[in-house]
Amino acid sequence: MRITGTFLDEITHDIPSQNWGPEEWAADFDVMRQIGIDTVILIRSGYREQAVFNSWSLRQHRPMLPVRRNLGLLFLDLAQQNGMKLLWGIYDPGDWAQNPRQALAINRDFMHEVNDQFGQHPAFGGWYLTFELSRNNPEQVELTVAAGDLAKSLTPALPTLISPYIAGTKAPPGVKPITREQHEQEWRAIFGQIRSCIDIVAFQDGHVDFLDAPDYLMTNLRLAREAGLTCWSNVETFDRDMPIKFPPIDWRKLEFKIDAAREAGVDKLITFEFSHFLSPNSAYPAARTLFRRYCERFGLDVKTPTCCGREH
Amino acid sequence: MRITGTFLDEITHDIPSQNWGPEEWAADFDVMRQIGIDTVILIRSGYREQAVFNSWSLRQHRPMLPVRRNLGLLFLDLAQQNGMKLLWGIYDPGDWAQNPRQALAINRDFMHEVNDQFGQHPAFGGWYLTFELSRNNPEQVELTVAAGDLAKSLTPALPTLISPYIAGTKAPPGVKPITREQHEQEWRAIFGQIRSCIDIVAFQDGHVDFLDAPDYLMTNLRLAREAGLTCWSNVETFDRDMPIKFPPIDWRKLEFKIDAAREAGVDKLITFEFSHFLSPNSAYPAARTLFRRYCERFGLDVKTPTCCGREH
Amino acid sequence: MRITGTFLDEITHDIPSQNWGPEEWAADFDVMRQIGIDTVILIRSGYREQAVFNSWSLRQHRPMLPVRRNLGLLFLDLAQQNGMKLLWGIYDPGDWAQNPRQALAINRDFMHEVNDQFGQHPAFGGWYLTFELSRNNPEQVELTVAAGDLAKSLTPALPTLISPYIAGTKAPPGVKPITREQHEQEWRAIFGQIRSCIDIVAFQDGHVDFLDAPDYLMTNLRLAREAGLTCWSNVETFDRDMPIKFPPIDWRKLEFKIDAAREAGVDKLITFEFSHFLSPNSAYPAARTLFRRYCERFGLDVKTPTCCGREH
Repeated sequence: MRITGTFLDEITHDIPSQNWGPEEWAADFDVMRQIGIDTVILIRSGYREQAVFNSWSLRQHRPMLPVRRNLGLLFLDLAQQNGMKLLWGIYDPGDWAQNPRQALAINRDFMHEVNDQFGQHPAFGGWYLTFELSRNNPEQVELTVAAGDLAKSLTPALPTLISPYIAGTKAPPGVKPITREQHEQEWRAIFGQIRSCIDIVAFQDGHVDFLDAPDYLMTNLRLAREAGLTCWSNVETFDRDMPIKFPPIDWRKLEFKIDAAREAGVDKLITFEFSHFLSPNSAYPAARTLFRRYCERFGLDVKTPTCCGREH
Repeated sequence: MRITGTFLDEITHDIPSQNWGPEEWAADFDVMRQIGIDTVILIRSGYREQAVFNSWSLRQHRPMLPVRRNLGLLFLDLAQQNGMKLLWGIYDPGDWAQNPRQALAINRDFMHEVNDQFGQHPAFGGWYLTFELSRNNPEQVELTVAAGDLAKSLTPALPTLISPYIAGTKAPPGVKPITREQHEQEWRAIFGQIRSCIDIVAFQDGHVDFLDAPDYLMTNLRLAREAGLTCWSNVETFDRDMPIKFPPIDWRKLEFKIDAAREAGVDKLITFEFSHFLSPNSAYPAARTLFRRYCERFGLDVKTPTCCGREH
Repeated sequence: MRITGTFLDEITHDIPSQNWGPEEWAADFDVMRQIGIDTVILIRSGYREQAVFNSWSLRQHRPMLPVRRNLGLLFLDLAQQNGMKLLWGIYDPGDWAQNPRQALAINRDFMHEVNDQFGQHPAFGGWYLTFELSRNNPEQVELTVAAGDLAKSLTPALPTLISPYIAGTKAPPGVKPITREQHEQEWRAIFGQIRSCIDIVAFQDGHVDFLDAPDYLMTNLRLAREAGLTCWSNVETFDRDMPIKFPPIDWRKLEFKIDAAREAGVDKLITFEFSHFLSPNSAYPAARTLFRRYCERFGLDVKTPTCCGREH
């Protein structure tokens, strides 16, 4: 079972830019297609003062930096050319957890604009709700439901995806880890509320000890099935255990998590994310070797250009 | 309006060494010249126990590590060969802000030695006073004036440069951000004191929100003009927004800052710094793609050797 | 005097994985041999839930991740093919300093298993006791003596190595620096206790100011000689002075430390570690240039494959 979906992280929050233009992006989509990726997920189309296109609705809510290249359209076109669907990540104001009402107000206008501008694109495949839930926080869950309802009203036939994180032993700084029982109890409640408008859940797999990952995967799958949701796993390809935040993951850890997700029975594997952490085109040399290990494991033979422009 | 000056950061404080020898430096100066760089600024010629040449004056003040390669001379020669001027950064004892008298005492002897040894070099183009001012701290301003006066007494015809930082929202850890009004008031006072011996000011452009950068650029230019100083912008090519301190900047941020500086009307753009963060020879692959984006924007066609020694 | 030994850090604690497979490791051992490395030291063969082979004894003590490639055997075979000896680093439970008894109990079983499985390998050259001592902590020293005694009982003819760190001005976070006198006093006492079972000591050279390194090297050598131990220097090839933990070291710092160790009269130079920080195959481009500087200094002419598979 291989990774068949990846986030695109180009309005980055904590991952340094690779400074790719259309040519480099086209080369990377070409590799993605060759290894079987059929789904790309824009992690966010806007973050604070940055966006992937010059949005009039965002500018009505707050000052924005100018955008010289419409990355939303570029990614949709590349997805179409490579036979992929793109799930569109909505706007993250940076303080959505503190001000969920404001985050909803902006996205109400913004999602209409996105649907008007890009909804008819052949590669437009649904919505990614960029807010990363973890605990059963009523305001945050309500925001997710409201954004999900809006997505469904705009495009009733298209799926909605969320990618929560587990408040586990490797939870982000400031987040208190909870027990597996608490996790199960809270997520049963959350799924009960969001099932009306969320189709797919893909938990991030990196916030728990590796030895606990299989159990969490099975728990999450069971909870999702109970609620009627499709369950993917977000197999993170970066390493959370290093002082450098973040390098490409050790292949042994990645292989373990892929196998654990397959054995749990999830429906699909996606990753955060291919281009920085698993690609032969990555700025991180250790990602290029990670790609070799990945191809060896799955018997993939991918043609990638050398630095001289010839193929290996 | 392109970047036509760069710092050289080879006695580094917080940027990892690229471990370049004369051959690698020559290749980088060659690229600098091709993209129009006419000014290089040695950010410091000594820092604590390290220096770019075996200075007898520094050794009289404190123990120093031996120096096997005279980088001061190497950089001057390369500057000359490529038609550039070099501004010479003075010695930073590491605690100049706490002990400005000591910093001055050492530099009094050291700047004489530098002038004796390198002042007649055809590429020697003036002095960079390496102390990074930010607030109107009397002792720090006095140190700058004393070092500037000394520079003027040694080489009356040559310019002096400083590169302060703004105590803005992205100020270094431990530095309290101040308002734009406070900044303006303090810097009007600072310029009044240093105008007698400082010719050029190049504020670092990375410590404020991007949306506020245009206003700060205009304020700083106005203040400098009032005081009769030349005003450059130090367009930082590294990214201050990432957990990794520091990767090459996102091209979109760099382009925004270049355009903002041009629109403000500054006299020249310099950067900290080309070789790590914008060069096709950089150890950071994302710098090599940043260089591509920069060349695309300005229609530059630069020949750089491939890894195989042939040209692209 | 060149570096003739290196650690192998493949169950990493704080250094990101390079994701090498047998082909990449073979290429790196080939370079090691060419520059004169005759000793490789596995820094640890297990750490918490990870190990270099599927050990039944570790699994009896705690749950372990599965291992798909026996790196212990791979490294022994590559050492043999390149005429090197391998010192085998024992298991680190991650909390050995807090629970030395537990660390000993596990290693008692584990070292027997290692000796059974690998002790007869032609390249098996002794033991590296992975616990990094620093102060004269009785429990930690007792653990070292117990592990050393066990090693000697299993393989009386083979050497044992430790690589302590100095609680100097660059000691790890949470470790209080001590004076040189305290260091000398405590290490005289430690050596008195461990001399019965430890053959070689290789202090890490990176936790003190560069200017103090020569004195510490001479002190450590004198203490080791007094106790009858062989004294190597662990010449660290990563940089402890940078915000990024850790990049390849500045060549000037490395050269200074190599020369200081030679002048002190140590018996051999090893490094932590070649493959990440000094190798032309490293994922860090600055390691590749560090390798060039190192080869220039020692007149080495090493054939390394280009990215196109041809040799330079």
